[in-house]
Amino acid sequence: MLNLYTFATPNSIKPVIALEELGVPYQLNSVNVRVGEQKKPEFLSLNANGKVPVLVDDSMPGGDFVLSESAAILVHLAERHGKLLPANGPFRARVFEQLFFHASGLGPAFGQSGFFQKTAQEVLPLAIKRFHDEALRTARLLNDILLRNEYAAGPEYTIADIAHFGWLWRRAFANVELEDMPGLARWYAQMLQRPAVARSISIVEALIPA
Amino acid sequence: MLNLYTFATPNSIKPVIALEELGVPYQLNSVNVRVGEQKKPEFLSLNANGKVPVLVDDSMPGGDFVLSESAAILVHLAERHGKLLPANGPFRARVFEQLFFHASGLGPAFGQSGFFQKTAQEVLPLAIKRFHDEALRTARLLNDILLRNEYAAGPEYTIADIAHFGWLWRRAFANVELEDMPGLARWYAQMLQRPAVARSISIVEALIPA
Repeated sequence: MLNLYTFATPNSIKPVIALEELGVPYQLNSVNVRVGEQKKPEFLSLNANGKVPVLVDDSMPGGDFVLSESAAILVHLAERHGKLLPANGPFRARVFEQLFFHASGLGPAFGQSGFFQKTAQEVLPLAIKRFHDEALRTARLLNDILLRNEYAAGPEYTIADIAHFGWLWRRAFANVELEDMPGLARWYAQMLQRPAVARSISIVEALIPA
Repeated sequence: MLNLYTFATPNSIKPVIALEELGVPYQLNSVNVRVGEQKKPEFLSLNANGKVPVLVDDSMPGGDFVLSESAAILVHLAERHGKLLPANGPFRARVFEQLFFHASGLGPAFGQSGFFQKTAQEVLPLAIKRFHDEALRTARLLNDILLRNEYAAGPEYTIADIAHFGWLWRRAFANVELEDMPGLARWYAQMLQRPAVARSISIVEALIPA
């Protein structure tokens, strides 16, 4: 059985989408980051980094295997099930290029853009400009790719699309709009039409207490 | 033939180390980021994101294959040569966990910590504290791992160690010291003793004009 510890956050929705796309059974465990449950000792014993999502996979050699980092979970699930990631060739390398562009570029830029505009205790115009500009720049790079390709890494839907979806779904936090990004807007609308993506949004939103 | 576009930066040294470890012949091309060569049209045609390193691999189906993102280059080289990344099992997943922890966590924290302490036009104490604290926190997480394991992802040297080495080598920029981190200090000293790592430092430092 797979146990997923997750919530309605940009990174947490990713493994839910992958599991729904793969049709693999899993147990959902809510970790309410809005009240700091990810910093409690019980959760820190699963992930010392204090972040969701975490996957616990009891099908691995050696018993319960505890894995953090949303993109590492995507790679693990894709490789275990032989789907959503080409086995070799240039298209496989492009998937990793996009996973790392998301992890090191677009994701942190969106997160810091939101932090300095919505959460920080002080208004710091230099920091707001730095990260909002970078969020827009990285979104435009992805837009340019999606004007040329149907999906983020090429002609097929892969875990690279699932990785990018999390922050694009939560783009309001980063103050990024898609009005002048037709490639991204077309791709985002297409993502929402996937039954597994629509189900995943409902699943993680149901974790938020009323 | 492999063509590597690179410089003496935390991310640029990674593929040099991997190529030196693998003993694969390659052509080195300097892109001097200190004078902005990574933003010139010639380089942007290779990588629209304007960042080093970039690998051009003419051995892939379809001709010259241009790949960006240092960690994606590490995965590509490791998979092409069947080294520095276990083929399957829990240890393989741990390598990806560390690659993404570096790409999304430690790397951006070190980079922003350095930016706000050394490069920013204004002194912003809130931003300095945010990113310096995060650089120290992520370094301590890696230190804890290296107190338990010989290498970042487990008992063997992998591309996860190469990924973490870049920013640990340039830790002065982030204002991170290893005095109270014995696991990291032991691992860093061990990394420096690897002939391929020592050669790579000389190779990239020789790219800096006198």
